[in-house]
Amino acid sequence: MAKFKKSALKENDGISAPETTSIAAISKIKEKRRQKKSTSDLVKAILNGNITALSQAITLVESKNSEHLEQANAIIKACLPHANKSVRIGITGVPGVGKSTFIESFGSYLTNIGKKVAVLAVDPSSSITKGSILGDKTRMEDLVKDKNAFIRPSPSGTSLGGVARKTRESIILCEAAGFDTIIIETVGVGQSETAVHSMVDFFLLLKLAGAGDELQGIKRGIIEMADAIAINKADGKNLKQAKLAKVEFNRALHLYPVKTSNWQPKVMTCSAIENEGIEAIYSMILEYKKLTIDNNYFYSKRNQQNKFWLIQTIEEQLKNDFFTNSKIKIELEQQLELIENNKTTPFVAAEYLLGLKT
Amino acid sequence: MAKFKKSALKENDGISAPETTSIAAISKIKEKRRQKKSTSDLVKAILNGNITALSQAITLVESKNSEHLEQANAIIKACLPHANKSVRIGITGVPGVGKSTFIESFGSYLTNIGKKVAVLAVDPSSSITKGSILGDKTRMEDLVKDKNAFIRPSPSGTSLGGVARKTRESIILCEAAGFDTIIIETVGVGQSETAVHSMVDFFLLLKLAGAGDELQGIKRGIIEMADAIAINKADGKNLKQAKLAKVEFNRALHLYPVKTSNWQPKVMTCSAIENEGIEAIYSMILEYKKLTIDNNYFYSKRNQQNKFWLIQTIEEQLKNDFFTNSKIKIELEQQLELIENNKTTPFVAAEYLLGLKT
Repeated sequence: MAKFKKSALKENDGISAPETTSIAAISKIKEKRRQKKSTSDLVKAILNGNITALSQAITLVESKNSEHLEQANAIIKACLPHANKSVRIGITGVPGVGKSTFIESFGSYLTNIGKKVAVLAVDPSSSITKGSILGDKTRMEDLVKDKNAFIRPSPSGTSLGGVARKTRESIILCEAAGFDTIIIETVGVGQSETAVHSMVDFFLLLKLAGAGDELQGIKRGIIEMADAIAINKADGKNLKQAKLAKVEFNRALHLYPVKTSNWQPKVMTCSAIENEGIEAIYSMILEYKKLTIDNNYFYSKRNQQNKFWLIQTIEEQLKNDFFTNSKIKIELEQQLELIENNKTTPFVAAEYLLGLKT
Repeated sequence: MAKFKKSALKENDGISAPETTSIAAISKIKEKRRQKKSTSDLVKAILNGNITALSQAITLVESKNSEHLEQANAIIKACLPHANKSVRIGITGVPGVGKSTFIESFGSYLTNIGKKVAVLAVDPSSSITKGSILGDKTRMEDLVKDKNAFIRPSPSGTSLGGVARKTRESIILCEAAGFDTIIIETVGVGQSETAVHSMVDFFLLLKLAGAGDELQGIKRGIIEMADAIAINKADGKNLKQAKLAKVEFNRALHLYPVKTSNWQPKVMTCSAIENEGIEAIYSMILEYKKLTIDNNYFYSKRNQQNKFWLIQTIEEQLKNDFFTNSKIKIELEQQLELIENNKTTPFVAAEYLLGLKT
């Protein structure tokens, strides 16, 4: 060492600029991130009603990473025995009908009477840029701050099947976390209403009283799916029209055959903004629940829904496997051309394509 | 030879009882049966408008024998370039609306103006014992005897898919045999109306004027599918009611968005039994044909239909292959039980079952 002491004057190497954050702190954060929460920790926290854990588990469900999905499946499996103890309510209606305001009013009413409310959405069109209606949480000011409410926007996904699956799995997690009322909102794009109908106990259609024919513009099949129609914005000068609409919808509902639930669909009026008619709607849902639990329809419907999703998922996957096969894709185009030129029939072409697969 | 001549008295062996039919004749018939008509002979005869050959070819199409089906495919392939030159009309309506009488009147009108009319049926419920409506040919006395009409009852089959396929292939054969107007009747059981709608150019819904709400009892979706509604039995004291019903249906039709064909569905009244309004209905169909040929919808729709049947056939077969697999059948039951006991989710079960297949 001494041989370097050429002079009493010492010149140190330049030191780097002082760190803006402590390296130790950063590595601690990194370590924490690396350290995945264990499945059993998450399950334990969810069952204790921990909202952060619930959110994290839903994030795993929504992930595209296969490791995450594996963990998600394990969490769901552990949560399953604690799920199913809720009433699942589907809510649909065209944009402008006041779905967010209704959910804000309905959800706040429920938490006030001691319920725990989870609000999920099925909106296959949603993405980060587009955003789902639930993304616009400013319309649900009170509910967002409510500690007994949990609001989660629609998972973004390319296919309705994917979004539906994620939402169904989120329902299980919410139920395991103690949420006793699950609200599933849908904007009614494409087949999303059918998907939501297949995952809820009670399906509520929100409508507005409009001028002219009340039945106009109702998407085919929605009326059959509805367990109740609530005519919203029944206040002020709309009140008279809303009452007229109620009569007309009631007449329309009576045209349909009695449901297997033995439930006669009802038409109600409400004003979400004035919190009017909200309690009556919840009473009706409880009435539905009592009737269908008494006649064994409630759980048999849930079983049917499970079976439906099982079959549906398999069928989707079979089709997907076939039609995304690169060889099939090319040959399919060729067969379509042959059909167009009257060189083969759809059935012979189908047989040919099916023969290629194996 | 001489050594056997023991006596002048000869005793012949007993002869068997005289044949009731000549053995030669029987073997000739058997030989004829064995001798299949060659594919090229049948095709030639069909293209010459030979009804017997057409019937034989349709019998091959309907056969369950794989050799017959192979021959049927070859015949259809040869007929394809000569097909497609017709107007295909689907006719539906509830029992009692007078479909047979309508087809008798409509078909007779058409042959009178020089058309060649083939009447086929799609009735998945039909079997030898049950019989389809077209089986009851006594209701079509004139048309049955008409040499320019060809009537063929619904093929019996277990699945709608099977019946639909056979009917579609029969359409090709009828067209190749020179029939320029194809009528497909359906009784509207299950999804058969959708199937017929997917194989015709024009879809006609027959209705009766009834008391009360005219829209009651119309199966969901039928109105959307209809290119026209004909209110039958508009005669005598029914006439006034029929005219009222026409107004109501017209109003209902206007609630639906404009069709991609740009055709505004029409409501007509007719009396098949009095041959009233029949000509007007045919004129309307010609008007439809002209409009849709001019705007390129006519053949693009046929192409869409072909594509639909190709995809449909493949999907049906994929599902069938999977769910009839004996291993899958057993495991599916087990998975359903696990789901019912909250031990797994439909999605995890689906993945498990799909993993078993390969």
